[in-house]
Amino acid sequence: MLRTPLVESHALSAVAKAPVYLKLETVQPTGSFKLRGATNALVRLAEAGCTRVVTASTGNHGRAVAHAARALGIEAAVCMSSLVPSNKVEAVRALGAQAHIVGKSQDDAQHEAQRLVREEGYAYVPPFDHLDVIAGQATIGIEIAEDLPDVAHIAVPLSGGGLFSGVAFAAKQIAPSVRMTGVTMERGAAMHASLVAGKPVLVDELVTLADSLGGGIGLDNRHTFSLSRELIDEVVLLDEASIARGIVHAYEAEHLVLEGAAAVGIAALLAGRLGNGAVEHGPIVLIVTGANIDMNQHRRIVGAA
Amino acid sequence: MLRTPLVESHALSAVAKAPVYLKLETVQPTGSFKLRGATNALVRLAEAGCTRVVTASTGNHGRAVAHAARALGIEAAVCMSSLVPSNKVEAVRALGAQAHIVGKSQDDAQHEAQRLVREEGYAYVPPFDHLDVIAGQATIGIEIAEDLPDVAHIAVPLSGGGLFSGVAFAAKQIAPSVRMTGVTMERGAAMHASLVAGKPVLVDELVTLADSLGGGIGLDNRHTFSLSRELIDEVVLLDEASIARGIVHAYEAEHLVLEGAAAVGIAALLAGRLGNGAVEHGPIVLIVTGANIDMNQHRRIVGAA
Repeated sequence: MLRTPLVESHALSAVAKAPVYLKLETVQPTGSFKLRGATNALVRLAEAGCTRVVTASTGNHGRAVAHAARALGIEAAVCMSSLVPSNKVEAVRALGAQAHIVGKSQDDAQHEAQRLVREEGYAYVPPFDHLDVIAGQATIGIEIAEDLPDVAHIAVPLSGGGLFSGVAFAAKQIAPSVRMTGVTMERGAAMHASLVAGKPVLVDELVTLADSLGGGIGLDNRHTFSLSRELIDEVVLLDEASIARGIVHAYEAEHLVLEGAAAVGIAALLAGRLGNGAVEHGPIVLIVTGANIDMNQHRRIVGAA
Repeated sequence: MLRTPLVESHALSAVAKAPVYLKLETVQPTGSFKLRGATNALVRLAEAGCTRVVTASTGNHGRAVAHAARALGIEAAVCMSSLVPSNKVEAVRALGAQAHIVGKSQDDAQHEAQRLVREEGYAYVPPFDHLDVIAGQATIGIEIAEDLPDVAHIAVPLSGGGLFSGVAFAAKQIAPSVRMTGVTMERGAAMHASLVAGKPVLVDELVTLADSLGGGIGLDNRHTFSLSRELIDEVVLLDEASIARGIVHAYEAEHLVLEGAAAVGIAALLAGRLGNGAVEHGPIVLIVTGANIDMNQHRRIVGAA
């Protein structure tokens, strides 16, 4: 896990008429910020004597758990359905984790993870709704406040709310007036629907370029819903064309390869949607969460295909 | 100027059968390591009372001088011929430097820089053959040795030798047994030709994907030739197809946009050319020097794969 660079984007500063900085979680060893929360959770579990952990994520969280477990010398299992593409299975194995292939759906994989916890003494590592995971993501907020004490506005990709809660909690402790915006996609944004409903609700998961932001927040959500509700100043919802423009700008002007979920802050800024287009009163930080995009999809979006 | 991340590449570690780390100078605010040397040189000049600096580089060094000058509150002029593309002129102006457009060749621009030094009291900031510049680049070697004390082998893109000399000097002070390889292109490698000749020689500058590595080392070279000759263990020369494969691997497997000069370490490793293909006895570091590639060229290279 790295302390990541905070780098000004001159191109985006010119658009915003205020200094815009990118927090580059793309350089984390697993290519996403998820390593922070997973590492913190696993350190706590290892301290408590745990030697085996399990998760059912096939994406950034799964990679993060596998990487952190190997670094700490504990065993990790990642449960996946038989429909998960072989490259994702191989990626998990390459990081030293066991791949448990069970059933034909994410639900089946989740049940297998629960069985390992119940019957074989594994500890489950949730992807966002856990205080140790939230505290790990919060280190991003601390680093931003240390590097840029006059930060006025932070835009955070919003999904289950683990990243948002952690960063907002830490940043507002240090810089109470900082504005916290959650950015997500129009298509299937569970936290947004829950905030509107005033309680955790289910949404249909839809295909989106920001696929890492998909999935529910859990009807039994314990922490991230209430923390997000308390700490969020604004939610921005983006259509798919805007997200694609964010990916293209990142490639063309910043020379960064980003997954869709990581490009939403850039996309919101380019669309004039941050702060409702009002004049910004100080530095803006966009958290650029990860680089794990399918490269054929990336080639198509940036026009290299 | 940033302390940059050192990140393991699992894909390259699998190829090398030893841990391979990338030193990501791509995240420097100007997109290349050149900011280190320029910043160190300008800090020394500013301490000595200098308020105006000049260079004739239109590339990474010119951007670095412009950025460092603005950060230090001193004036920077970048001399260029009228043949320099307007996007490069605008890039320099966007960083707050004056663009002096003079004549029709790099030699004309160089003469204008000399005139500003002679007649108007500017201080010239050389791109590589100056001890303050070399010392700035050396911070990369210090950071590597701090982050990875058992580093066994460092591969450095080799051009004028400022980066190579600085990194090799620092790294060998801290880790005397570290192997230092310079990697460059077959087409117009001035330092390689000079090392073979035993003295600085002129070479024809040829079109290459690693264009940042082009240019002479100066027949009146004072520091980098002798330092490189003393500190270099091996030179690897790459053909254009190998360099292209390095750029494609960086995009496809590491999700990095690299300029050709920055991809030569990866290219050498993929071609089995580092350490003459012998078994590596410890961690290898590849210095990934910059991201400033023309994006239409990048699209062509990665789209063709």
